[in-house]
Amino acid sequence: MNAIGVDIGGTKIAAAVVTPEGRILNEVRYPTQAAPQDRLVATIARAIKEVKDGFEVGGACVAVPGFVLSAENKVILAPNLHEIENIRLDEEIGGRTSLRVTVENDANAAAWGEFRFGAGSEVDHLVFITLGTGVGGGIITHGVLLRGAQGAGGELGHVTLDPTGPLCGCGNHGCLEALASGTAIERRARVVANDHPRSALGQLATERQVLGEDVTRLAEEGDEAAISVLQETGRWLGIGLAGFVNIFNPEVIAVGGGVSRAGEFILASAREEVQLRARSPSRDLVKIEEATLGPESGILGAAALARGEDGGYVMGPPKRLARKGG
Amino acid sequence: MNAIGVDIGGTKIAAAVVTPEGRILNEVRYPTQAAPQDRLVATIARAIKEVKDGFEVGGACVAVPGFVLSAENKVILAPNLHEIENIRLDEEIGGRTSLRVTVENDANAAAWGEFRFGAGSEVDHLVFITLGTGVGGGIITHGVLLRGAQGAGGELGHVTLDPTGPLCGCGNHGCLEALASGTAIERRARVVANDHPRSALGQLATERQVLGEDVTRLAEEGDEAAISVLQETGRWLGIGLAGFVNIFNPEVIAVGGGVSRAGEFILASAREEVQLRARSPSRDLVKIEEATLGPESGILGAAALARGEDGGYVMGPPKRLARKGG
Repeated sequence: MNAIGVDIGGTKIAAAVVTPEGRILNEVRYPTQAAPQDRLVATIARAIKEVKDGFEVGGACVAVPGFVLSAENKVILAPNLHEIENIRLDEEIGGRTSLRVTVENDANAAAWGEFRFGAGSEVDHLVFITLGTGVGGGIITHGVLLRGAQGAGGELGHVTLDPTGPLCGCGNHGCLEALASGTAIERRARVVANDHPRSALGQLATERQVLGEDVTRLAEEGDEAAISVLQETGRWLGIGLAGFVNIFNPEVIAVGGGVSRAGEFILASAREEVQLRARSPSRDLVKIEEATLGPESGILGAAALARGEDGGYVMGPPKRLARKGG
Repeated sequence: MNAIGVDIGGTKIAAAVVTPEGRILNEVRYPTQAAPQDRLVATIARAIKEVKDGFEVGGACVAVPGFVLSAENKVILAPNLHEIENIRLDEEIGGRTSLRVTVENDANAAAWGEFRFGAGSEVDHLVFITLGTGVGGGIITHGVLLRGAQGAGGELGHVTLDPTGPLCGCGNHGCLEALASGTAIERRARVVANDHPRSALGQLATERQVLGEDVTRLAEEGDEAAISVLQETGRWLGIGLAGFVNIFNPEVIAVGGGVSRAGEFILASAREEVQLRARSPSRDLVKIEEATLGPESGILGAAALARGEDGGYVMGPPKRLARKGG
């Protein structure tokens, strides 16, 4: 049965009808502006109804950048979405679309997308990490999407790698996000540009603010200063990934997000650090690769989750649910 | 149905017949000496046969301190057990005891014991961490024991918290184990004793080597130097736990092992650090507590796993198994 995946970003809402094999049959996009909660909900519902028109569809799942209480289909907080707080999207949108609607954290949905259709499609144990302005994550272990007790799990970006390291957006110091995000690359680029004023990076920095994509471009052009920025970023990424290798013993770690376009400049250093820091046999098994679905991972994963194929909340011996039931 | 749990330690083998409710009906112990693999296997088989005598028993699970390939009931490597390497304990011991025998990592078994009968008995999401000479871990998420692709998962002791920190037994620098184990406490105690020669800790250090249990005792007697050693250890523990809170969104983190006898001296500091470093809503939910089963967690967990109640390897959509099957 086809299903609808919806991906809510800071600047756009995308909704698509997706086949069980992960093929997109129809897609619509709307810009998201700072809008009251009611308006955003109405836009999501409109996108779903519009994309659904003419297709047989079994349900929809909305991937939201924020904290989601999966078991209750509730968005607790979405810092980048104006006014979205403590809202049950299943009721708000399900009612308007006559569809069964579920909600998922966007990085979890993207992880599920890569697990089903992308870098993890051949394995049962996948760690997905997305490097953008921030760092997000999603984990599939034993084929189960790791949501945690409230659906707030999988926050791989906020493990501490250096307790006295740079301040993170979360208020903590030395998080993986503070050391390996696009923001971290830009901060590091400023320092390296200062130290190497005659490098291409140093020269660009005298003209304007250096962005993450500039660093990648200069690295591709062979600028040693830019390359060192990405390698240093890769080393910090690898320190974090080594921990995830030890914890999850995954078959694949898929690295996505805008920063992953820096590719091997970052990944080669990350792999070296994993070889130094993770333990056998886990470190020998794991493949650290670029994610393969790009920005579509979220929408494909959400659609797959809409079919309830993950079953994350009905598996295992859910003790409290069993007790409630009698 | 009763089952047999076997716990293999560096100095002893314990085997017990355990009821489904976690009550021990019969128990035997043998010392383990440095012995060839054959002899160790024979001792395990003898312990099982002896403890089983007169009881109706459904199966046995052997908890081993080392890397275990759960899916194949194979011990890959057990560094503290002489010569144990690449051995299928199910075949070696099952044949001699006429029982279905499975194998599990000892920290995973202990985690399952706490999950079923101890600090995690009321929850579905538990992180168990054991602080002894080393640091081990076990994770239950959505009621599933997290073993990873090879059964080597759950290695919580070897996440990096300080890349330039003290050397760890694993060869890495600044692992949680290098910063929060009993060994770390003893190293830290030497430094603090040097800095505070007139403290009780400082005085003891002039007489003999200070052990972890000495530090706890002196802290209980009010020695500020000893208290500061445990608090510093607790802070590092908390930095690690904060990451686990963000990753797993667990309901309970249970802290066991010999070091946990230092109790609140360590746990209070760890909780403070988690409040500073972990994110809402996960940090607001989690309870960080002492494990409740003590050294029996391993044997109780192993017996419960012997009943196959966890189902870790038959759950989820095990893609490769499905492909193999057709």
